[in-house]
Amino acid sequence: MSNLLPDSHPLAGHDSLIQQLRECGRLFHSRGWSVGTSSNYSVVLGRDPVELIVTASGKDKGRLESTDFVHVGPEGLPIESDQPKSSAETMLHVVLAEQHDVGCILHTHSVWGTLLSEHFFDEGGFEIEGYEMLKGLEGITTHDYSHWIPVFSNTQDIPILAEQVRERLADPMESMTHGFLIHKHGLYTWGNDVFAARRHIEIYEFLFECTARKLGFPVV
Amino acid sequence: MSNLLPDSHPLAGHDSLIQQLRECGRLFHSRGWSVGTSSNYSVVLGRDPVELIVTASGKDKGRLESTDFVHVGPEGLPIESDQPKSSAETMLHVVLAEQHDVGCILHTHSVWGTLLSEHFFDEGGFEIEGYEMLKGLEGITTHDYSHWIPVFSNTQDIPILAEQVRERLADPMESMTHGFLIHKHGLYTWGNDVFAARRHIEIYEFLFECTARKLGFPVV
Amino acid sequence: MSNLLPDSHPLAGHDSLIQQLRECGRLFHSRGWSVGTSSNYSVVLGRDPVELIVTASGKDKGRLESTDFVHVGPEGLPIESDQPKSSAETMLHVVLAEQHDVGCILHTHSVWGTLLSEHFFDEGGFEIEGYEMLKGLEGITTHDYSHWIPVFSNTQDIPILAEQVRERLADPMESMTHGFLIHKHGLYTWGNDVFAARRHIEIYEFLFECTARKLGFPVV
Amino acid sequence: MSNLLPDSHPLAGHDSLIQQLRECGRLFHSRGWSVGTSSNYSVVLGRDPVELIVTASGKDKGRLESTDFVHVGPEGLPIESDQPKSSAETMLHVVLAEQHDVGCILHTHSVWGTLLSEHFFDEGGFEIEGYEMLKGLEGITTHDYSHWIPVFSNTQDIPILAEQVRERLADPMESMTHGFLIHKHGLYTWGNDVFAARRHIEIYEFLFECTARKLGFPVV
Repeated sequence: MSNLLPDSHPLAGHDSLIQQLRECGRLFHSRGWSVGTSSNYSVVLGRDPVELIVTASGKDKGRLESTDFVHVGPEGLPIESDQPKSSAETMLHVVLAEQHDVGCILHTHSVWGTLLSEHFFDEGGFEIEGYEMLKGLEGITTHDYSHWIPVFSNTQDIPILAEQVRERLADPMESMTHGFLIHKHGLYTWGNDVFAARRHIEIYEFLFECTARKLGFPVV
Repeated sequence: MSNLLPDSHPLAGHDSLIQQLRECGRLFHSRGWSVGTSSNYSVVLGRDPVELIVTASGKDKGRLESTDFVHVGPEGLPIESDQPKSSAETMLHVVLAEQHDVGCILHTHSVWGTLLSEHFFDEGGFEIEGYEMLKGLEGITTHDYSHWIPVFSNTQDIPILAEQVRERLADPMESMTHGFLIHKHGLYTWGNDVFAARRHIEIYEFLFECTARKLGFPVV
Repeated sequence: MSNLLPDSHPLAGHDSLIQQLRECGRLFHSRGWSVGTSSNYSVVLGRDPVELIVTASGKDKGRLESTDFVHVGPEGLPIESDQPKSSAETMLHVVLAEQHDVGCILHTHSVWGTLLSEHFFDEGGFEIEGYEMLKGLEGITTHDYSHWIPVFSNTQDIPILAEQVRERLADPMESMTHGFLIHKHGLYTWGNDVFAARRHIEIYEFLFECTARKLGFPVV
Repeated sequence: MSNLLPDSHPLAGHDSLIQQLRECGRLFHSRGWSVGTSSNYSVVLGRDPVELIVTASGKDKGRLESTDFVHVGPEGLPIESDQPKSSAETMLHVVLAEQHDVGCILHTHSVWGTLLSEHFFDEGGFEIEGYEMLKGLEGITTHDYSHWIPVFSNTQDIPILAEQVRERLADPMESMTHGFLIHKHGLYTWGNDVFAARRHIEIYEFLFECTARKLGFPVV
């Protein structure tokens, strides 16, 4: 593998995971889901306390280098000081990583996701129902299923948003199983590894495009 | 050719066909027709009894490995036990492979196909008529032709769906010559080899996009 | 250059032109303008009498081999007998090649072109006006220009269509300077070399997309 | 680095900047933002007086060679005579390069930008508001921001247009901070280096697509 890091580097030993996130970046950028240095991706190294590798702030996601990542601890801060600045949204990753089965968190910005987050904001989210493609979401075994995508308000106060997400994850009345949108912003989804989280991104993007295009269809 | 399999492997000797299916996967994934591990592809090795090589379940179609395939027999079961699980929809491939001139079966999930399968479900299908591109369907020699795409109900009971497809293929009153959609699910098409089946995928996707975009056009 | 042909081959000595057409095929296929073995491309070797190299019939345009071409004479027939079958539309290429400044003819099938050819068929064509992009058409030096795209009826009788195109090219009242569409079929354009003809394809496709998308816009 | 130029060449020593512009070309062409030889790109070498490297006229932006650039001075003319012709719009680059923090200027032609420039021309521009993606514009730190995109009239008299742009840049009442559109033409944006200007292209294109697609949505 290229780009092997020296033992003393805060990312040392995690080359394979980093390669997988870089490949996500190349794919998502080529699809238009991570343009303009938007998006951030992380893998979970530990949960007690939470340890993550997360993309550094302001990088072109289509051309991530092996060193464009930060090793952070449970408060979202770098575990060693001489690392690049991590994404402003790192605390959202930390909160999601606290869940017992989450190994990877991916956040993207697509046109369709953005439009739906705007269109359905007042309703707090929207339903996606009856599509075979829903079976790509972990644990879903039939198309005969209705999936709710919550839409959160956007804010620059990430700790507040992170707390809202934590509460929602714990809310027994309103489950949030696979992902959510932020208003005029983008998608967060997760999975037990990079493969699963990346699959969720593709599934959501497919279903978002279907949902948004249907809005422009004539009623028959 | 890379990825040569040992003689004892259930896929041994079929490297070229497997390479062709892998290339279909790369193309279809890049077009957005096989995302999120959706889709499945097969080639027919024999017809009496039916023998197929079909994609294993749950693989990323854009990055298929040579070993991400299963050699199955006439009941859709692996001919040897130490193979990966084949696609849940293997029996649909078996039924289609029973036809005398079918060498390859391709199943994809595109946004346009999904939207049309939903839009025209109550009518049982839809007509595509008068397009030069129809000549890309095997045996069609003029654009002056009307092609019906049936839309089947979706179900997780694949043997039932397979039986409906078998009956429809045999129905002298309602021919189903080149492919069909499943409601909110995707496209099945086939051809006498991978080249022909892949061409049918491209032809259908083109015609689906035309048909769906026209629905959004103003009437002049 | 790879794929050098032996001296005795009917395409011998034309490797560079053939490479350029193959590259057009890769580009146009990747854009969705030449899918499903649709489209055909030619370069003009001589004009008195007309001699062309044109794509063979039924090839995947995204993966053209150096031998997937035919050297044809003024009647559109192969100059030597042991060549593949040339495209069914070869006579259209011959007629266009008769014009004094044409070195390359490209025919593509895009969704937007197909939709516009259908939408504006009854009017015999449509106007594209005022776009800076029009300056990419050879000889156009200002955006302040109105360009008419004729739409011909489709037919499987190519000699009849070729004759209509020849008459239209010679018609002093209705010029047809850079290209035309065929109803529910596709685009023909040309240029003095492959570079110019390829540029015209890109220009037309851009303008077709603008024109078609505007039809779906609300009137303000 | 390939394509090293001899010391005597007017572009000598600027290989790295030229490589970055070539890579912009490959990306923007693949996205459909620089097709048909449209678009032009420059980097600023000096500001007192202005010196630029700008794309030569009429080149395919997806396949720029290292020599497809021109080194020009403050009047937009080549600093040495044996160079290719620079883009007809070079004076727009010069005017933008006069600003103290501009290191790179990128001009692209996208379908969405073109459609919006036409749709909102009578209003002189349009507002983009509340999108997280706005934070990709240099200096913007919150989504809670309203960004105005001016639309200028198109003209073939570039010095006149350049003067209008210069005046607008200096106008204290109507700021124009990151970019503008020209009617039925395309986008100009800039940044302190190629990375920033390229990011602005991606940000604008994303926001243009959102804005244009929303116009086609039904009102709920």
